[in-house]
Amino acid sequence: MGELTGLTVGDLDEAGLLAQFTAHLPAGPGTILGPGDDAAVIAAPDSRAAVSLDLLTEGSHFRRDWSTGFEIGVKSATANVADIVAMGARPTSLVVGLGLPLDLPASYLIDLAKGLAHVCEPAGIGVVGGDLIQAPQLLVAIAAYGDLGGRSPVLRSGARPGDVLAHVGALGQSAAGLALLKAGRRDSHPNLVNAHLQPICPLLSGHVIADAGATAMMDVSDGLLRDAARIATASAVGLEIDLTSEAIVEAKAPLASAGEVLEVDPLVWILGGGEDHGLIATFSPEAGLPPGFAQIGTVTTGAGITVTGGELPDGVAGWDHFGG
Amino acid sequence: MGELTGLTVGDLDEAGLLAQFTAHLPAGPGTILGPGDDAAVIAAPDSRAAVSLDLLTEGSHFRRDWSTGFEIGVKSATANVADIVAMGARPTSLVVGLGLPLDLPASYLIDLAKGLAHVCEPAGIGVVGGDLIQAPQLLVAIAAYGDLGGRSPVLRSGARPGDVLAHVGALGQSAAGLALLKAGRRDSHPNLVNAHLQPICPLLSGHVIADAGATAMMDVSDGLLRDAARIATASAVGLEIDLTSEAIVEAKAPLASAGEVLEVDPLVWILGGGEDHGLIATFSPEAGLPPGFAQIGTVTTGAGITVTGGELPDGVAGWDHFGG
Repeated sequence: MGELTGLTVGDLDEAGLLAQFTAHLPAGPGTILGPGDDAAVIAAPDSRAAVSLDLLTEGSHFRRDWSTGFEIGVKSATANVADIVAMGARPTSLVVGLGLPLDLPASYLIDLAKGLAHVCEPAGIGVVGGDLIQAPQLLVAIAAYGDLGGRSPVLRSGARPGDVLAHVGALGQSAAGLALLKAGRRDSHPNLVNAHLQPICPLLSGHVIADAGATAMMDVSDGLLRDAARIATASAVGLEIDLTSEAIVEAKAPLASAGEVLEVDPLVWILGGGEDHGLIATFSPEAGLPPGFAQIGTVTTGAGITVTGGELPDGVAGWDHFGG
Repeated sequence: MGELTGLTVGDLDEAGLLAQFTAHLPAGPGTILGPGDDAAVIAAPDSRAAVSLDLLTEGSHFRRDWSTGFEIGVKSATANVADIVAMGARPTSLVVGLGLPLDLPASYLIDLAKGLAHVCEPAGIGVVGGDLIQAPQLLVAIAAYGDLGGRSPVLRSGARPGDVLAHVGALGQSAAGLALLKAGRRDSHPNLVNAHLQPICPLLSGHVIADAGATAMMDVSDGLLRDAARIATASAVGLEIDLTSEAIVEAKAPLASAGEVLEVDPLVWILGGGEDHGLIATFSPEAGLPPGFAQIGTVTTGAGITVTGGELPDGVAGWDHFGG
């Protein structure tokens, strides 16, 4: 990395940049052919692959004055890994495309690769290829692949009245961290800021969740209420979220101090905040919940989302990158 | 599409835009689960998948004042399909992410989806998912998947001295079309302009090429000399390209008139022009060439590219989207 000091993306050609970037990408046990050819080759052990693609761009999903390249790598990998886990699959491989401003330091690429590796390497996820183009804003496009291991995918549409609604992962911490960054209070609650800059998907395989009999699942990227509403719509059921449930009550504690500082009810972040990349899933009431999951509500015969056990605070909204 | 008249991307929410876009995407025989969940599920019949990801962005790869949405869909699909074919695989599925300026007409999305379908539907390629984000410039990110059908992938690194170098597809037509567009002469040679705006991958499966014993292959996206040099480097061989070969001589004819108008030697486009998305491959001299392929040179024990049978014209360059 020493030889990149002081250089920008515009100082190197595409081959040079790619070589620097791919040198820091991990292979995984499912990586049959890694970067360097027209395509990579990955294992798909059960003759299927769960596939997703996610775009993150400067301004909408991260800011370079807030995030290091490493943090953008972590966040991008997590967002994609969570989509695969939410199908009940085990992520095996990522392919990464980057849009690069010409004035970006070349070392930024290495940091971003290391952030991807930080999430992927311990989980045995190979980062098997990449494409680099010039772009006015930093952009990260990741395609992710997962192995269902012979299981049926866990869809959004399988929730049944009477099922338990459960959650695993952080709730509202990413939104609180974002609010702190926006308020210029980066240093007052570093754990929350870090939860925004480097979110963690709480499980790196969805197999255990599928095996526990999850009837529906998705990752919480746009806010608990908004994403739960998607399960309700897809399953043609209602979801009751209980504000007195232990998981929601306990989620307030780490947010309380930041809420006081910013004069925000932590419930606003818990119910409306995006980008935590926890998982919500529904389970038959007879089934036990998989490790880490806690009940936050129940599935009903109604429609949409109902909140019980308290008032919905003002200002709760899901996250939409467009107008509506 | 009537209800979208006059609306822009900024007038609709993400769910509405996605619903409009995905309604026009084709499923394929390998599509197990299409758009609408956290991930799609595709078939990978031989327990492997060839995977690639390609980014195309306004300014670098297309211009909205030159290309319709349909044409951008065609070009983006072709670029990705070619990467998979170049591995000796059969493309089965695409996942598409779009970065959308808020002032883009909403109908543009439908046109783009129809352009993707135009390439994919006849070839049995499913477009199985998508992600839409806001972006300052139109951006198309496509992940492509291919089935190797039990074959070994055809790498860039397998060319051996004595092999035949062969090509299939257009040569220089996309570059000539781009030059005409840049010169404001869009109407004088519509076939060439169309070859730039809607390039065609000459084969929609690489299986026949792998079965013919191709020792190395790649698609010509950055120019014949530059891409051939990549095979030479990866294979540690030299490549001699014969300017008197029938394929190269014949490639001049459709370019002659545009070359006169723009005062460009057609060889400049044939040897240096990118984005034709034809295929170059090497074959044992004993093997017959697959349908459509024609010899353009030979593999030698040297290094790099040598041109025989004529002078290399001034101004030949490969395509690099960065500085170098």
